[in-house]
Amino acid sequence: MSCKTIITITRQFGSGGHEIGKLISEKLGIAFYDKELITLAAKESGVSPEVFEHADERMSNSLLYSLSTGLYNYGNGFSAMGDLPMNDQLYILQHKIIKEKAESESFVVVGRCADYILKDMENVVKVFIYADLEVRAKRAVERRDIEPSRARQAVSKADKNRANYYSFYSGQKWGATENYDLCLNSTKLTAEQAADIIIDYVKITAKES
Amino acid sequence: MSCKTIITITRQFGSGGHEIGKLISEKLGIAFYDKELITLAAKESGVSPEVFEHADERMSNSLLYSLSTGLYNYGNGFSAMGDLPMNDQLYILQHKIIKEKAESESFVVVGRCADYILKDMENVVKVFIYADLEVRAKRAVERRDIEPSRARQAVSKADKNRANYYSFYSGQKWGATENYDLCLNSTKLTAEQAADIIIDYVKITAKES
Repeated sequence: MSCKTIITITRQFGSGGHEIGKLISEKLGIAFYDKELITLAAKESGVSPEVFEHADERMSNSLLYSLSTGLYNYGNGFSAMGDLPMNDQLYILQHKIIKEKAESESFVVVGRCADYILKDMENVVKVFIYADLEVRAKRAVERRDIEPSRARQAVSKADKNRANYYSFYSGQKWGATENYDLCLNSTKLTAEQAADIIIDYVKITAKES
Repeated sequence: MSCKTIITITRQFGSGGHEIGKLISEKLGIAFYDKELITLAAKESGVSPEVFEHADERMSNSLLYSLSTGLYNYGNGFSAMGDLPMNDQLYILQHKIIKEKAESESFVVVGRCADYILKDMENVVKVFIYADLEVRAKRAVERRDIEPSRARQAVSKADKNRANYYSFYSGQKWGATENYDLCLNSTKLTAEQAADIIIDYVKITAKES
């Protein structure tokens, strides 16, 4: 493809979104950002990646407090970043990195409110990947070492965390169709099929519009 | 394609779903059912198509009453069909026709709870087409002779009618992602692009699964 392509993937826990995103990036030969954003944020800030790992995609309880006390000072060069909760520091850094990357390269990005952060840019395809709870619980057991009896509950809780994180920072509803260009049910699809469907979407919209 | 393909299209009012569905049927060379189902239902029942037209995709207020009085008698060959409200007669006839068609041919069907009616069948691709309210209001003005000042309200009302009809007969929530394989935002797409994306989905899933 001649022009820049950015694909944001929002995914229900256990829907295979990470794997699908990785496959798309490999097939298109473009960058892939998921946990990689933590490493980049850590490098930029000097905060330990392990500390950020713990705060990743979780909403803070105290951004509003920070705002009210004037500690939140993004526009003035992060002068008060150190006073913010880790979650908010990470969100702000990831926000900045995603915006910068979008100016210069094609990539696939998973989670991190990227669809919201890039909503006003052209050439951004916003995808939501979801699947039946049963399939997602099964995948959680197989890949995340979760007890079968607790799997459905764990999946629902993980989704709730992602939804809270998303709505906290974006003010939008996570998983609501209107935030996405394409919502794909991965229940009956292989990762390969899902990746090909999304790539076809990108090619068809790039070609004729 | 060697095996049968059925594509159900659920569409927000003004999203272009009818046009997209028609294009898909033309490109794949398969049948298309939208208002055509009314003609078929009228032929089967002897009721005037005009009468059914008026009742199309509207829920009845009295199916529950009919059920409680034992008038609803689908299993026994519609013996009491004439006693049911037109909406329910039409729903039952369309249900029967959609089921029968699905046994014998490939087609695209728009609306009429077809995704719910065919949910247990294989080779059914369930699509939801939606778009920004502004775009849909504009299309309503252009194509349906609706006053610009009333367009948004008219679009929302039409959606509400469809949602009520769907949930009344299916017990499911209209437009909820889990009921569909693919949800497509038509806001930035031409009908041709949307049709091609859905056809690619059909081809990719038919090929590798």
